[in-house]
Amino acid sequence: MTGPRINAERLLGRLRTLGNIGRDEGRLTRLAASDSDRAGRDAVVGWMHDAGLEVMVDRIGNLFGIWHAGDANSAPLMLGSHIDTVIDAGIYDGCYGVVGGLEVVQTLREAGVKPDRPVVIAAFTNEEGVRYAPDMMGSLVYAGGLGVAEALATVGTDGTVLGEELARIGYAGPHEPGFLRPHAYLELHIEQGPILDREGVAIGAVENLQGISWQRVTIDGVANHAGTTPMAMRRDAGQAAARVVTFLRDLISQTNAPTVATVGCMAFEPNAINVIPSRAVFTVDLRDPDEDRLRAAEATLARYLESLADAEGVTVVVERLAQFDPVTFDPAIVAAIEAAAAENGLRSRRMTSGAGHDAQMIARLCPAAMIFVPSLKGISHNPREHTQAADLQAGANVLLDVIRKLTHVASGEARSFSQQNSKLGFAYDDSFTKEGI
Amino acid sequence: MTGPRINAERLLGRLRTLGNIGRDEGRLTRLAASDSDRAGRDAVVGWMHDAGLEVMVDRIGNLFGIWHAGDANSAPLMLGSHIDTVIDAGIYDGCYGVVGGLEVVQTLREAGVKPDRPVVIAAFTNEEGVRYAPDMMGSLVYAGGLGVAEALATVGTDGTVLGEELARIGYAGPHEPGFLRPHAYLELHIEQGPILDREGVAIGAVENLQGISWQRVTIDGVANHAGTTPMAMRRDAGQAAARVVTFLRDLISQTNAPTVATVGCMAFEPNAINVIPSRAVFTVDLRDPDEDRLRAAEATLARYLESLADAEGVTVVVERLAQFDPVTFDPAIVAAIEAAAAENGLRSRRMTSGAGHDAQMIARLCPAAMIFVPSLKGISHNPREHTQAADLQAGANVLLDVIRKLTHVASGEARSFSQQNSKLGFAYDDSFTKEGI
Repeated sequence: MTGPRINAERLLGRLRTLGNIGRDEGRLTRLAASDSDRAGRDAVVGWMHDAGLEVMVDRIGNLFGIWHAGDANSAPLMLGSHIDTVIDAGIYDGCYGVVGGLEVVQTLREAGVKPDRPVVIAAFTNEEGVRYAPDMMGSLVYAGGLGVAEALATVGTDGTVLGEELARIGYAGPHEPGFLRPHAYLELHIEQGPILDREGVAIGAVENLQGISWQRVTIDGVANHAGTTPMAMRRDAGQAAARVVTFLRDLISQTNAPTVATVGCMAFEPNAINVIPSRAVFTVDLRDPDEDRLRAAEATLARYLESLADAEGVTVVVERLAQFDPVTFDPAIVAAIEAAAAENGLRSRRMTSGAGHDAQMIARLCPAAMIFVPSLKGISHNPREHTQAADLQAGANVLLDVIRKLTHVASGEARSFSQQNSKLGFAYDDSFTKEGI
Repeated sequence: MTGPRINAERLLGRLRTLGNIGRDEGRLTRLAASDSDRAGRDAVVGWMHDAGLEVMVDRIGNLFGIWHAGDANSAPLMLGSHIDTVIDAGIYDGCYGVVGGLEVVQTLREAGVKPDRPVVIAAFTNEEGVRYAPDMMGSLVYAGGLGVAEALATVGTDGTVLGEELARIGYAGPHEPGFLRPHAYLELHIEQGPILDREGVAIGAVENLQGISWQRVTIDGVANHAGTTPMAMRRDAGQAAARVVTFLRDLISQTNAPTVATVGCMAFEPNAINVIPSRAVFTVDLRDPDEDRLRAAEATLARYLESLADAEGVTVVVERLAQFDPVTFDPAIVAAIEAAAAENGLRSRRMTSGAGHDAQMIARLCPAAMIFVPSLKGISHNPREHTQAADLQAGANVLLDVIRKLTHVASGEARSFSQQNSKLGFAYDDSFTKEGI
């Protein structure tokens, strides 16, 4: 594909600049609606102005840079991600989608390209959910999955209220979330998994996003003395919990399904070396791109927990913490990503997003898809998170070419794509208004 | 057996009085060398004076009430336990041995009984080890297993220094630990396990005490995203830890040995719902009355950890936290306990102590044994710790009758016992100077 190419130096420079905002004693932490978040937003607003965009903020603090192009009455094409981070974060997660989108728009504007509709860069509030739960909050509210008043009333881990913090940092905007209904949404993101890196593939054309089931399991047994209680008389909550952990992996190992199961949190009570645990509390994170298979895994776990309660003489209580249905991205956009990668001489593969992203929320509103670039060793949410400069550049150029296709920028290829693109609306009506996020 | 009987009302009243010293908002906590411990010691000292005993304190704060009886040059018979408690404790653990011993001595004195040697009540410092490690410290120092200067320099969980705290509460005595070398040692204690209660047996004649092996295992894997990392590419420290927990129980279930294994502490890092654990740290408490079997269990665990490291792609580091060899109590004293129980019309059984006790330390110095009474449902270290009044009374009367046997109080039975007792010294030389506590 010929046409304008992004300015890699500018892209990388902005990523580095943003990656130094909120850095304290070497650690990058830019939690939603914090002073660091304000400083990061201020930098992005400055770059939006540099690119000639109009900046707008909605009530939940989602930040938009609008390129008024094409037919002003047309629904805008939206590109975006988030700039909040986890604690002790890397510099790419989220930021790459915002800064990369900005780079694409600035490049297109500087090249005098005329899209047929407005293009909007979005930076959604509180994607990480570290300070305020749930995660992906800004895009969830934007898509109508959570009321704005309820979201603004959220009390953070530090006792602050999100709405007050947004007002304090000057990013409580006047617009109703959802005020711009996008024509389509594209999110450029690091994979946060090992597949592209391991396979040496530059571009992931993300065709779906796993369904996520989060449960908290509390097992109650009986605390007793570790020395004086014969094994057969124990009701050991820790032992029961360990059996769940091994059961989950053994269950999944029996199949070829892409299901993943993780027990990430575990706590024993009283947590004393010589006391049989009276209580074990742990989380189960189950994911699968297929909804039926995800429900089946949950049901198998539930049956196991029931039999375990009998066998171990313990009680088991399960709470559901989160449930996100799987999301199928728009096949035409996914095909456009593959085509753009090929035209750039890059290897690509279709893949599933294992992580949650703002794209899964905005997919409720419009056709959507994601472009992944490799994460070194799959590491993310960590200072060692890394993507090669060449991969960052390639991903942004693929995004640029997909944008050109979706905004009908004059060229033989683009015109032929525009014929396909007109089908997207129907695909959206059929498949994208999912409930239960 | 005929002869004086203990004053149950006085015994129970003193247990209740002691059980209300250190009670705060309903919770009983009397940590070693605390203000509450001072108040508890003051009460015990008062009762010792009431009973006509001379009170002496050694440098590590062990408290002794001496009944100057019989041949002043004879080694004294020692009865004892401890009065420090865990946090949110019951009222019997330890206190029963001290108050019960005191009751026996006071009863014998009041009845005009003349033992052939001095009798000493001991309350050892810091048996629980909650504030200062290790536990059983006072008796360990007394038996020469830990230097007194080193013990006094111990820094507590609250940053205090044991020696300073003992001086502050007025219980840093002048005598060298070990200054009274006992002829024999007897400890009356609640079982802290479920066996006597379940079997409806009043008296446990404790013939040995389990060896204890405490290890801390640290497993390091790789933290990764729970959604994006395929199961086959994980190095999940939590999964590996869970496999150790289930392995341990499955290992022991295959045998009929009395080995017990407990994983009481468990912690995952980073302990986040959507992050594969990079680290799991847990403790393994292994106990067995047979030293060879205990070493074999440790070796089997070590081999399993090695194979696990390979299979799971994790590293495993094992630290030894404590190791107590099994202790065999004196067979003649154990037989005397059984005989006294029978003479009192009480069912008894020989048993193993699953918990550690001061008796295991003093058994280095002289022939020793323990008398157990039932713990309701085996509960201890808990406000629900309970022993029936009738059982408390029966246990103290059995102790009294054993003391009469061991101090050659005139009677046909006691004289015949004294012939056996003279062998104890040799048994001690052969078996009781164990190293490695």
